[in-house]
Amino acid sequence: MNYFYAYPKQISGGIIEISGQEAIHITKVLRNKVGDEILVLDGIGNRYKTEIQEVSKKSVLLSIKETSFEEAPSIKKIMAFGSIKKRDRLEFAIEKAVELDAWEICIFQSEHSERGNLNQERAENIALSAFKQCARTWLPEIKVLKSLDELLRHYSDAAIYIAHEQEIDRISPEELSSERNVLLVGPEGGFSDNEIESVQKAGGKVVSLGKYRLRAETAVAAFLSQYLN
Amino acid sequence: MNYFYAYPKQISGGIIEISGQEAIHITKVLRNKVGDEILVLDGIGNRYKTEIQEVSKKSVLLSIKETSFEEAPSIKKIMAFGSIKKRDRLEFAIEKAVELDAWEICIFQSEHSERGNLNQERAENIALSAFKQCARTWLPEIKVLKSLDELLRHYSDAAIYIAHEQEIDRISPEELSSERNVLLVGPEGGFSDNEIESVQKAGGKVVSLGKYRLRAETAVAAFLSQYLN
Repeated sequence: MNYFYAYPKQISGGIIEISGQEAIHITKVLRNKVGDEILVLDGIGNRYKTEIQEVSKKSVLLSIKETSFEEAPSIKKIMAFGSIKKRDRLEFAIEKAVELDAWEICIFQSEHSERGNLNQERAENIALSAFKQCARTWLPEIKVLKSLDELLRHYSDAAIYIAHEQEIDRISPEELSSERNVLLVGPEGGFSDNEIESVQKAGGKVVSLGKYRLRAETAVAAFLSQYLN
Repeated sequence: MNYFYAYPKQISGGIIEISGQEAIHITKVLRNKVGDEILVLDGIGNRYKTEIQEVSKKSVLLSIKETSFEEAPSIKKIMAFGSIKKRDRLEFAIEKAVELDAWEICIFQSEHSERGNLNQERAENIALSAFKQCARTWLPEIKVLKSLDELLRHYSDAAIYIAHEQEIDRISPEELSSERNVLLVGPEGGFSDNEIESVQKAGGKVVSLGKYRLRAETAVAAFLSQYLN
């Protein structure tokens, strides 16, 4: 079952206008025609069952036949991880975070992060593609921050959980109870002592993800997997 | 901290002889010299702290200074998944299964598997590299089987858990209690009805991994993440 994405502004009065690559995919790649059923997600909770009404060179008009709305979760998981230099591993982390129900994805420069250029547009495309693939209703936002301190300020309203190898006040993953929860994974080189201290000052709890050292993108997947529902 | 691997037969009388690529890595890439400390895993429970005793053109002799042995786990997780055609996703699934503590990795042809050639040697190299990276002590075996029925026969002594989208007698992941447990993930196309029936006949329990459809390699990571310790 293929899902397509439409920006909320492309939807009005029972009609969805799809343009660009997404339209090409519908008409040229999948060869859909007038009258065919198309499933659309708007990334803000709605799933639309639609029918192709009109196909033009640049766009496809869909008429909405059915709408279902999924409430935003009351407990949100913000997956935050230190930037990963290797592109395939970075993209994998983003993809898995989307599949495993991250509400928001925050990529930050950690003290031990290897410097690399993060292409935010590309990151957003990876997220969008995973979002359609797994048929989620809410599209996670990608947030890029310059340091852990900025992150802690930005998410000062959230509960902080940190995956860390060292055994300091470790807890097993427990049910989340705050409305917003940051799940924090370090860079390949691990957090610096300063960073660990900042997290502890911010009330962050250290969570154990087993006894082996995990690659950053594995920790992302494993961390979110603790809180699936 | 780099770990190196030695086959058990390369170890005798307090001496480990490393040859091939692994030796080149020690002497040429990392430029280690006589007297340097080298950490070695043998894949059957032992971690060795050693010192380089002699470097020759083709091999490195290490003398063992310290040995620590980790018992095999009493509860073993066999990660079994339908063969994945895209090579990067297949390799990712293998790598993650090793990091997330699979005791054995079984790749099988499922009815809906797209046919692809699995290079077993390459799969074993991926597993070995992940094994060293995460510093495990027991190297998971890679088992390739031709069908789900063969798998169910092969693991007839094990408890079977299956990740499946459809809601038939689903349970939340619970603690494993059998000595051997097969965690079963379908191919991208999902299991066939026949296969689901075979699993149910074999007493398999369906486990839920959240409400979104997961890619096969994500399901591998998420499934094993339920049982970390």
